[in-house]
Amino acid sequence: MILDVTSAANPSVKRLKSLSDKKTRRLEGLFMAEGLRVCTEALEAGRLPSLLAVTPQAEAHPLGARLIAASVAARAQVMRVTPILMSRITGKDNAGGVAAAYPIPDTSLSQIDPASAPIWVVGENIRDPGNIGTMLRTCDATGAGGLILLDNSADPFSVEAVRASMGAVFSRQVAQAGGAQFFDWARGKGQIVGAALEGRTIDYRAHKFTAPSFLLMGNEQAGLPPEYAARCDALVKLPMRGTADSLNVAVCAAVLLYQALSQFEPL
Amino acid sequence: MILDVTSAANPSVKRLKSLSDKKTRRLEGLFMAEGLRVCTEALEAGRLPSLLAVTPQAEAHPLGARLIAASVAARAQVMRVTPILMSRITGKDNAGGVAAAYPIPDTSLSQIDPASAPIWVVGENIRDPGNIGTMLRTCDATGAGGLILLDNSADPFSVEAVRASMGAVFSRQVAQAGGAQFFDWARGKGQIVGAALEGRTIDYRAHKFTAPSFLLMGNEQAGLPPEYAARCDALVKLPMRGTADSLNVAVCAAVLLYQALSQFEPL
Repeated sequence: MILDVTSAANPSVKRLKSLSDKKTRRLEGLFMAEGLRVCTEALEAGRLPSLLAVTPQAEAHPLGARLIAASVAARAQVMRVTPILMSRITGKDNAGGVAAAYPIPDTSLSQIDPASAPIWVVGENIRDPGNIGTMLRTCDATGAGGLILLDNSADPFSVEAVRASMGAVFSRQVAQAGGAQFFDWARGKGQIVGAALEGRTIDYRAHKFTAPSFLLMGNEQAGLPPEYAARCDALVKLPMRGTADSLNVAVCAAVLLYQALSQFEPL
Repeated sequence: MILDVTSAANPSVKRLKSLSDKKTRRLEGLFMAEGLRVCTEALEAGRLPSLLAVTPQAEAHPLGARLIAASVAARAQVMRVTPILMSRITGKDNAGGVAAAYPIPDTSLSQIDPASAPIWVVGENIRDPGNIGTMLRTCDATGAGGLILLDNSADPFSVEAVRASMGAVFSRQVAQAGGAQFFDWARGKGQIVGAALEGRTIDYRAHKFTAPSFLLMGNEQAGLPPEYAARCDALVKLPMRGTADSLNVAVCAAVLLYQALSQFEPL
């Protein structure tokens, strides 16, 4: 059954909208994803929302109809809202036709089977949610297993991170851990390769990736802490030909992931 | 001479702050850059602000003192502002100690000498200013000449684009043109390589880049228009191993730029 909702004061509308707040997400154990394409990716990954809002236009789309049917069958609450109300929910002027609340998955390290993918990205203190989402998206494109976020990284289930992931938050695994905990867990499970600008680095093309690898990326400003770099099995560096000697962390991760993929699956 | 300014109503403070608006930027012919590091990059590229605001903390920094001296010598207006006022100017809670207005350079195609760099990025209808800035930053890192923005691309001099470029907006060239104009201009000047998912594409590793190349990237949602793809000398594709068949445009450009760099300068 689809409920027609026209008021921004409706409790379910308010609940969905409130998921843009981190504390509320943690309290409710839910996060918000937007867009018919992204929510269809979720469905294909076997993930169903507990709360779904659709515009009449999205409802009329074949993928929208499929999403609604699956959500109703799973006893999710489904609301039909106006485009204006949808913009209020997502905070976007040009909102898509779908917004939905999904249960936040268990992000403990024990959920990760390193052998299930050839490579994993590990982010240390990644502060920008857009970088987190973009790294997840590149993990999807390159067949990496997912993203392990260390220490005080930003929330991978924020609206910005989920948006930048373009659905990869559903197709990839996400874990959260402390740095020491990660190094203890990873020991013997795979090769830890850190991206660094200084120290005993080698050109990234000279490094032989073995599966599974953990690709460790440092914070946007500070890079990899020396004590973490010291615990890596190898440190790799990208050539820098410019004046600034810096790259966006998601860009750097992508170049390294494609290098690894190219080694695992040569042309 | 440094003027002490304490009021947000000061005309120069208002003028600097107003550069976050696109129309004002066009009208004034100025754009805003923030941060001691970025404004020092500008200085090293021979670019001086016409208006400079610094906090006392930035003033006390050796690089800040150098920036102020150079700006005063160039008859720029220099203001000393409180950290709170700086936050008002930049719209950032955690503002750095420097904000400055720089003349917007001439962005006509005729300013570009293609032979001055081995590769150039060309963006068609790039809508996200963060992607524009990130592509410029990667151009700097890989020694690419800069970014040519086609059609209705976002403003490369917006605060968001300048911020994401991390100073590369000063070290790289930026041009703006219509698509047809670009193809006419580029004819005979270099190889046009389009990034595409469909059509007569080849694996990006199988393509031999020649200098100078123009690397043509399509819009974030729609990709490269077929009529533009048809005018490329080659179309390259990155392997896609995931469910979503998509990559962030700045990520895709970076993987291709590093591939080209790797061919121009083998290990």
